[in-house]
Amino acid sequence: MASRINKLFAKLNQENLDGLIASSSANISYLTKYTSRESYFLVSEKANIYFTDSRYTEEAKDNLRNLAEIKKTNGSVFKIIAHTCLDLGLRRIGFEERCLAYAEYKKIKEELKKKAALIPTYGLIEELRQIKEPEEISKIKKAVQITASALEFIGKFILPGKRELEIVAELERFIRYQGATDSAFEIIVASGTNSSFAHHIPTKRKIKNDEPVLIDIGADYFGYKSDLTRVLSSGKISSLEKKIYHIVLEAKDRAIRKIKPAVSIKEVDAASRRYITQKGFGEFFGHNLGHGVGLEVHEEPNISSKNSNVIRPGMVFTIEPAIYLPGKFGIRIEDMVLVTTEGIEVLSGAVVK
Amino acid sequence: MASRINKLFAKLNQENLDGLIASSSANISYLTKYTSRESYFLVSEKANIYFTDSRYTEEAKDNLRNLAEIKKTNGSVFKIIAHTCLDLGLRRIGFEERCLAYAEYKKIKEELKKKAALIPTYGLIEELRQIKEPEEISKIKKAVQITASALEFIGKFILPGKRELEIVAELERFIRYQGATDSAFEIIVASGTNSSFAHHIPTKRKIKNDEPVLIDIGADYFGYKSDLTRVLSSGKISSLEKKIYHIVLEAKDRAIRKIKPAVSIKEVDAASRRYITQKGFGEFFGHNLGHGVGLEVHEEPNISSKNSNVIRPGMVFTIEPAIYLPGKFGIRIEDMVLVTTEGIEVLSGAVVK
Repeated sequence: MASRINKLFAKLNQENLDGLIASSSANISYLTKYTSRESYFLVSEKANIYFTDSRYTEEAKDNLRNLAEIKKTNGSVFKIIAHTCLDLGLRRIGFEERCLAYAEYKKIKEELKKKAALIPTYGLIEELRQIKEPEEISKIKKAVQITASALEFIGKFILPGKRELEIVAELERFIRYQGATDSAFEIIVASGTNSSFAHHIPTKRKIKNDEPVLIDIGADYFGYKSDLTRVLSSGKISSLEKKIYHIVLEAKDRAIRKIKPAVSIKEVDAASRRYITQKGFGEFFGHNLGHGVGLEVHEEPNISSKNSNVIRPGMVFTIEPAIYLPGKFGIRIEDMVLVTTEGIEVLSGAVVK
Repeated sequence: MASRINKLFAKLNQENLDGLIASSSANISYLTKYTSRESYFLVSEKANIYFTDSRYTEEAKDNLRNLAEIKKTNGSVFKIIAHTCLDLGLRRIGFEERCLAYAEYKKIKEELKKKAALIPTYGLIEELRQIKEPEEISKIKKAVQITASALEFIGKFILPGKRELEIVAELERFIRYQGATDSAFEIIVASGTNSSFAHHIPTKRKIKNDEPVLIDIGADYFGYKSDLTRVLSSGKISSLEKKIYHIVLEAKDRAIRKIKPAVSIKEVDAASRRYITQKGFGEFFGHNLGHGVGLEVHEEPNISSKNSNVIRPGMVFTIEPAIYLPGKFGIRIEDMVLVTTEGIEVLSGAVVK
């Protein structure tokens, strides 16, 4: 814990801040190495204070002993946070502008009564989280491994007559027996034309003969997530499906071959997108190529055509090109990669395609 | 739809607003009767416009035909929202102050370039959502029924040697076969001393002989939620457990007997809390007595000692008194009630206790 918080102190010093009110659960979990819910965390060189309500105080005390003081906040959390800042003598206090609602900002600011400045910050902790530590990587690998096993396991259920929600049911059950603490997001099972919607909500629809079935699944392993997509089939695959599938597969491989430290992220996006466009399907691939994965299933870095940052060792992200043909079907293939000092490791490399 | 949006128009008129930027997914789902994700919804008498990215545009078009115009917003959603407001000639635009991050507020405000005012609003749509319509009540009842069946079903798995996460796995599977589209929240299975944490995260811990096992589960049925808690046992029940159980049960029944239209909400909270305090366990019941349930698992009205509003027909909320004995165990019993013009209906009345 010390080292993550110390890295944050260095950033606060750069910004000339003497404290930060963290409000993102993922950021707080990162700093404390504890699965935080319904909390705020004040970080400063004077004291680190964890604010939560009575439902969580006993658990927080058990987990944050020696790391932070716990303050119970039933009722008026923002008032308590502001007064704690003033009592500590803080004068320039940062807050997370993307993770604090306008109403919360307003209440804290009012309670500070102009005795201290409340200053928006952007991505201070998210920036640290982009580069994964070994203990984080091993949890992510476990989450990927559970998901990979689930995709192997589910093949036998992709049958005509089975409902989308029943497939989800079997996957949700399976990953927990494998040790997942939760699913990383609502599992997507999209059969037939439903697969043309990128984020379909599973229904009672029964799978028909010879249909593509898109499965997008992630596991949560002690806070760390995975995220993989495969398209299976309930029977024969049409020639159009085969053609689209191979374009998407090649687009994915082209992006993966591009990834290594110091390459610009938008070049990776371009490697996939250019190929899909060349093949005439550019308009059917609307979303970004991928996203970082860690304590959140969508986090930095965003693998998009607008991201000019470079790839760095320790980053973990998805590569998920897709083609969605409205009214027909969609194909998305999503792998997860870890950037190493030498190049990359495809974490989901062994998963059936 | 027309009537929900028309009710909102009346509220906007009262507040002297000519438009509202809704940003809460639950509020947008309420207004559109469509399960909204990753969207913003501009409501005004001039036009209703739904902003989302390419992953959702096709689906939104299929579902919101005739109800709203769809605008695809990849990249710069806040700029597009602001310019749409200006193009429509809106001058006083409300936003949801609890559901818009400070950074989002700031971007929209900047883009409006002082040509229109951006005004915080609080709970306009949440207020409408407190009184459930018949079609909402029937979905909530279905969600409760699925959860009730799950609690009956799971009894046979509450055995020594079974892991908490395995119980969760069976529940997650079962509710989807019953037609739930999702679980309403991370199901809690807390065995032995873990039950003393109000919101325990399930682990690989194996249930031991003669332990209480607290289960808190909800189903999502087409967007509408349920939320029930029961404490089962893996064997014999100690006399302390029995004593605490009966105090909590009586506390719940006292609250339920209090509920009818026009009674103040804090009196309902007091009915349970006073009894638990009389019995000497007041300090071990820290949280509120309950909360509204609908499109969100926690919504208005909050059943707390600070809520002076009165109970009204059409409200749906939980009653969940509890006693948590640190290091020992916890007992919480949670029912869901619907307020009718005559009194109440306990939606989970038939569930084993």
